[in-house]
Amino acid sequence: MTTIALDAMGGDLGLDATVEGAAKLSREPVDIRVMLVGEAARISERLASLSYDPTRLEVVDCSGSVGMDEDPRRALEDKPSCSILTTARLVRDGDADALVSAGNTGATILASARTFERLPGIRRAALAAVYPTERRHGPKKDPFALMLDVGATLHAEDIDLVGFAVMGAAYSSIISEIASPRVALLSNGTEPNKGTEAIKSAHARLAGGPLNFAGNIEGLDIPRGNSDVVVCDGFLGNVVLKMLEGVGEVFRDVARQASGSKLQWKMGLAMLGGGLRRIRRMTDWKAYGGAPLLGMDQVIIKAHGRSESRAIRNAIKVAAKAAEGDLIGRIQAGSSALGLGEAERTGSKDA
Amino acid sequence: MTTIALDAMGGDLGLDATVEGAAKLSREPVDIRVMLVGEAARISERLASLSYDPTRLEVVDCSGSVGMDEDPRRALEDKPSCSILTTARLVRDGDADALVSAGNTGATILASARTFERLPGIRRAALAAVYPTERRHGPKKDPFALMLDVGATLHAEDIDLVGFAVMGAAYSSIISEIASPRVALLSNGTEPNKGTEAIKSAHARLAGGPLNFAGNIEGLDIPRGNSDVVVCDGFLGNVVLKMLEGVGEVFRDVARQASGSKLQWKMGLAMLGGGLRRIRRMTDWKAYGGAPLLGMDQVIIKAHGRSESRAIRNAIKVAAKAAEGDLIGRIQAGSSALGLGEAERTGSKDA
Repeated sequence: MTTIALDAMGGDLGLDATVEGAAKLSREPVDIRVMLVGEAARISERLASLSYDPTRLEVVDCSGSVGMDEDPRRALEDKPSCSILTTARLVRDGDADALVSAGNTGATILASARTFERLPGIRRAALAAVYPTERRHGPKKDPFALMLDVGATLHAEDIDLVGFAVMGAAYSSIISEIASPRVALLSNGTEPNKGTEAIKSAHARLAGGPLNFAGNIEGLDIPRGNSDVVVCDGFLGNVVLKMLEGVGEVFRDVARQASGSKLQWKMGLAMLGGGLRRIRRMTDWKAYGGAPLLGMDQVIIKAHGRSESRAIRNAIKVAAKAAEGDLIGRIQAGSSALGLGEAERTGSKDA
Repeated sequence: MTTIALDAMGGDLGLDATVEGAAKLSREPVDIRVMLVGEAARISERLASLSYDPTRLEVVDCSGSVGMDEDPRRALEDKPSCSILTTARLVRDGDADALVSAGNTGATILASARTFERLPGIRRAALAAVYPTERRHGPKKDPFALMLDVGATLHAEDIDLVGFAVMGAAYSSIISEIASPRVALLSNGTEPNKGTEAIKSAHARLAGGPLNFAGNIEGLDIPRGNSDVVVCDGFLGNVVLKMLEGVGEVFRDVARQASGSKLQWKMGLAMLGGGLRRIRRMTDWKAYGGAPLLGMDQVIIKAHGRSESRAIRNAIKVAAKAAEGDLIGRIQAGSSALGLGEAERTGSKDA
């Protein structure tokens, strides 16, 4: 049985999504137990109207939570017993095997950095994201690829990018069940001499190494999905990921306008049915599940703020799969194989 | 009468596109003369089968041209009389008012840098691109916004970004006829303290200045088109632009698969007709016309390598409009208004 500690207070929909997602999961035939961390009275009230398996749900009371728009640093200082910090402590103390949160992203990163240890050889944490691609990935034919970092480390040096490559490959090998995921560096050209100094140097370190390194990819390759794992710094990853969201929203706007305007267009859209579903999936993947925050010695899954109960349930399952697949062990093995432990000793210390 | 020097040898389609585009334009009621620069015998041969106004077309003979995949630096050294260098010299010597090329991008940038003077106050050149947005721009309701740099300056410092903002605003004010274009910095958040050091410092220099500065925008805002001009360094711009191309291609693939598979889907697509046209336009804008290379003391329009004759014709018209609108004078005025002349004196000298 794998135990997941869930910040029940986090996310745009709060308890409506988290409690319902956990309750649903408790009735499925999976070996997962969920600790719902937050204001016990409110959680129990929500649970009262739901059907769930009480042997697989536990409520852990704590006081306070970080709002979605609150300043993370100040909020964590003001509320030392808040739900995200309490959730992290449960994982640190071994009461749970992984952390799931749909709450304030900055607070999740900061609470994790303060509660967990950084892995040896990993200088900087990376927040990953899954995004939809044309090509499918691995034996499960996963329609998503992994990109990291998308917001934890604004400026990444070569050694940080190499660490992201190791962590992304480890995660992808477990979640997408790809024995040796194709890992690529995002750059402004496919040639090894293209990109910033950090990219060129990371390229040299990854080439010929133990990872299945596909070299550099360009912007064109992102939606095509020519690699399973896309590595970049947090600034670029943030812009790229938000742009993918924006493009999806614009396409949906245009489709909505078309369907609302002419009867003929409405009928055309209706007839497309399944054909459109594929485009819709590609433009509305955000609430799919969760993506990992990597670099700490615990499994941390960040669900999108807009997650509904189904997405919370998926995020919990992803967290359990990562924990059961020994994500941390795989990262450590990959990090050692690339000699990252050496690098760390000479690297900078700050988070 | 405005005279445009066109590199007739450049582009994936070569003379087929350039000569036909110029011939078509010569019969339109516009005050534009075109110099077709390249191998005169081959140009004349192509012209023989076309209908054109000989008073508005001139063939300028020269030998050699730079292939689309050739190394620009070596090619320009090996072929000092090649078409792109000859075209640039015609503009430098006042025989033409602007340069248009659909050829090798690197060679166009390098030939321009070697033949023209950099504008005072502008430290680095920028290659701009137009891209489709949901929102329309200016009195012409232009469905495109301008992004720069997309490939001339990999790493831009604050002063370079400010220069890009000035140049992008000047170009947009002429081509999209927007009196005071909204200019934004592309960053990882809208707050002024978001982004790299260069972005934060450029933000401080632009805020409260003479441009219509809209602050930072995020990736989400790129396809929405919340600003008329998007400023970023060449590395980020390259990734973003290629990603937009990639997303467009993926959507077209999916639509093609849908239309090829089920009769019902085929009919649905057919019924959508005009509704789809808007999406198609948003995903296949590349051959639309041209985009400027900015920073030199001449008007330079780079057409997409894949340009067909219609796109070449559009690029020539865009070049004429920029020259007639005094693009260079407007950039100089904007640069002075922001005090960029001062900065240059202390800035680095290398191109």
